[in-house]
Amino acid sequence: MISTFQVISGSVVAPLGFRASGVFCGIKASEKGKPEPLDLAIIASDCVGPIAGMFTTNQICAAPVKLCLKNMKMRKGQAIVANSGNANACTSVRGKHDAKSMSEAVGKALGMDSSHVFVASTGRIGLPLPMSNIKCGIENAVKKLSSNHKSANEAAKAIMTSDTFEKEFAVSIDLPEANVRIGGIAKGSGMIHPLMTQNAKRAKGELHATMLAFLTSDICIESGLLQKALSEAVEDSFNSITIDGDRSTNDTVLLLANGKAKNPMIRNENTTNYHAFRDALSRVCLELSKKMVKDAEGASRFVKLIVDGARTNAEAKIAAQSVANSLLVKTSWSGGDPNWGRIVDALGYSSAKIVEEKIDIAYCADSSSDWVYSLRKGTPTEVPFERLCLEVARSDFDLHIHLHLGKGRACIYTCDLTEAYVSFNKGDISKPSSLGG
Amino acid sequence: MISTFQVISGSVVAPLGFRASGVFCGIKASEKGKPEPLDLAIIASDCVGPIAGMFTTNQICAAPVKLCLKNMKMRKGQAIVANSGNANACTSVRGKHDAKSMSEAVGKALGMDSSHVFVASTGRIGLPLPMSNIKCGIENAVKKLSSNHKSANEAAKAIMTSDTFEKEFAVSIDLPEANVRIGGIAKGSGMIHPLMTQNAKRAKGELHATMLAFLTSDICIESGLLQKALSEAVEDSFNSITIDGDRSTNDTVLLLANGKAKNPMIRNENTTNYHAFRDALSRVCLELSKKMVKDAEGASRFVKLIVDGARTNAEAKIAAQSVANSLLVKTSWSGGDPNWGRIVDALGYSSAKIVEEKIDIAYCADSSSDWVYSLRKGTPTEVPFERLCLEVARSDFDLHIHLHLGKGRACIYTCDLTEAYVSFNKGDISKPSSLGG
Repeated sequence: MISTFQVISGSVVAPLGFRASGVFCGIKASEKGKPEPLDLAIIASDCVGPIAGMFTTNQICAAPVKLCLKNMKMRKGQAIVANSGNANACTSVRGKHDAKSMSEAVGKALGMDSSHVFVASTGRIGLPLPMSNIKCGIENAVKKLSSNHKSANEAAKAIMTSDTFEKEFAVSIDLPEANVRIGGIAKGSGMIHPLMTQNAKRAKGELHATMLAFLTSDICIESGLLQKALSEAVEDSFNSITIDGDRSTNDTVLLLANGKAKNPMIRNENTTNYHAFRDALSRVCLELSKKMVKDAEGASRFVKLIVDGARTNAEAKIAAQSVANSLLVKTSWSGGDPNWGRIVDALGYSSAKIVEEKIDIAYCADSSSDWVYSLRKGTPTEVPFERLCLEVARSDFDLHIHLHLGKGRACIYTCDLTEAYVSFNKGDISKPSSLGG
Repeated sequence: MISTFQVISGSVVAPLGFRASGVFCGIKASEKGKPEPLDLAIIASDCVGPIAGMFTTNQICAAPVKLCLKNMKMRKGQAIVANSGNANACTSVRGKHDAKSMSEAVGKALGMDSSHVFVASTGRIGLPLPMSNIKCGIENAVKKLSSNHKSANEAAKAIMTSDTFEKEFAVSIDLPEANVRIGGIAKGSGMIHPLMTQNAKRAKGELHATMLAFLTSDICIESGLLQKALSEAVEDSFNSITIDGDRSTNDTVLLLANGKAKNPMIRNENTTNYHAFRDALSRVCLELSKKMVKDAEGASRFVKLIVDGARTNAEAKIAAQSVANSLLVKTSWSGGDPNWGRIVDALGYSSAKIVEEKIDIAYCADSSSDWVYSLRKGTPTEVPFERLCLEVARSDFDLHIHLHLGKGRACIYTCDLTEAYVSFNKGDISKPSSLGG
């Protein structure tokens, strides 16, 4: 029997027993004539439950990430508090104290053990948090906690930095014994090339944004399996996107589960129920990841890049990242130029094995369309330049690279590089508050 | 006794016994109302002599590079022929044949063994060379060969692609027994992040443009020592610059030596004469490298980045490259923003060991100025933001990073990322001839 899932609304409050809120407390600057920008969010469960997390592998890791890693040891969580506008990174002893104060303030206001309250921050690095504003914000956010969909939407808004729209997604899974829901909110936009692990330690030689994603589920599951499902889902979603190749000090994914769906506890990974949960969770993570890339700073093209035929899956991912992070490839896309020369150049300097005479490169609008080859076995095809330009002119296209060396495969999501990205990120030093990340 | 050297004019024809020329043969498009752009250069020695070379480590390596690698086996050379406007890369069997035809045409016209003629190309990847134009160009270039400084300047112009000025440098070394000269021309601008080796094979895990540099010397030296001196000089010059992190299929450095200075043959690396030659060669390579970075596509800032205190020199270079290739660091420089948060972020995701609490970051105008610290032991200093902005406002500044973990040190040269870089490289698909690299 195949379990199915449906897309539903409500994101983090779609699962039973969760409330959320988003408020403005003055971490971000408010602009005259514009609505106040929300900058502090809380997500809370009615009861404590297992928590899973994935965190940046950057060696410079923000104070809230350090606190999460510490709290993760008990594998139990009940609430998340997050602010935007300030990353609380490179803030030394004070930063650690501030992150802890945030968890304590939420714990006190909600009557929870503060070690069950997880903290995340995003924004400029190196500035101390305005703690009086934050404490005031926490008070207000606690008062506003609600299971209305509007509250989840406000939480999604409150974690945005340069994001232009809020990112929410939720699904409902029909398990035989019960309906289970998974919901999530996320933010991205720049400094996006995540490589997260559950212990913030990376394997040697691996490659690696601020991205935040907060997920909730009412599933009843053992904490080890919750972490396993999240680790697998993140690998093919958040860890498979790149906007600018810069990897943040604050990347955090957290998943709270509270058991309110009352399904029989999932204790075994070789069960239909576990598979159904993991597949649905993967879909939620993937949809949130794609929304991040679609909202990438200044981007005009969304590209799904598939590398097939590498010696290993790991080499396929390395090759894909080399292409996706090449400035010359990214700028050619922004001009609508199907420049396969820059693509093979980027493949050639990656550490993945490549043989020039074997490479195929093709474009297509989506997985149901015909492929249009620009290169076959390392040789340009007869397809006219103008025809290839039509493929790259789309705001959303697939790029297939086949290396014909093995069975390794990877799929990553990326975007072009535009003048708008540069203009946005060079900021305005006459307004230090405009300076991001 | 310390040997000294003086900067002289004439670049590749400054050494005795060398002639050069640059012509237009229609590889580049000529524009109405503008002078015809030179696109083919020849450099020739009056006699055959030892040659040294360094070549791209990109696995996709252009036909002329393959030919050079083959010809290098004899370690003897007498001429270089190079074209701009077309990289002759990813051009399959025809490309190899065309590169060989170029060497044969020059060999025949000058009465040389064609295996002593080295070939280089730069421009768009994947297009066949217009061989009838090139053969005509070679005939004209051979006729125009001269030891006038103007000819060397025309050769320097003929290898330019997006370069806005020609790059030439030469020195004269006072050895006790004779004066020796070294001259060079180079081109760079985009797809610049060279990692070259003499055999085009890279050590695993190493990082790695089209850049071309052609060097001449009238020194009398054994071929093995000539290669040793070049390898050392390239490591701290061409292999220590990055513009956009993209590494080309065509990077080539060639050094012809003809013995016309009549110094006693250098056969031993532990001699004053060898050291004097190597130091002077390093200076020539460094000056040409800096000119490349100063002429980087769209760049408005030239940055000398020194990483000190890494565990090893290799880790220092990895850390420096991570900072120099970070889009967010590069865009912050273009805005004049001394954003040290992005710098520590890039340090943190490099594979070099970093400890947040030990990092110092300082700016200065040049090596004789005081350092202005933005970070000491991982903590922001009291230096006002406006003061730091003054440092980054310069078109040319030094950035010092001290990791305090060991004695590893690296110095690399890089630039900012501007809207102009993106605009230039996205090209204009309505004019495919405008599309670079």
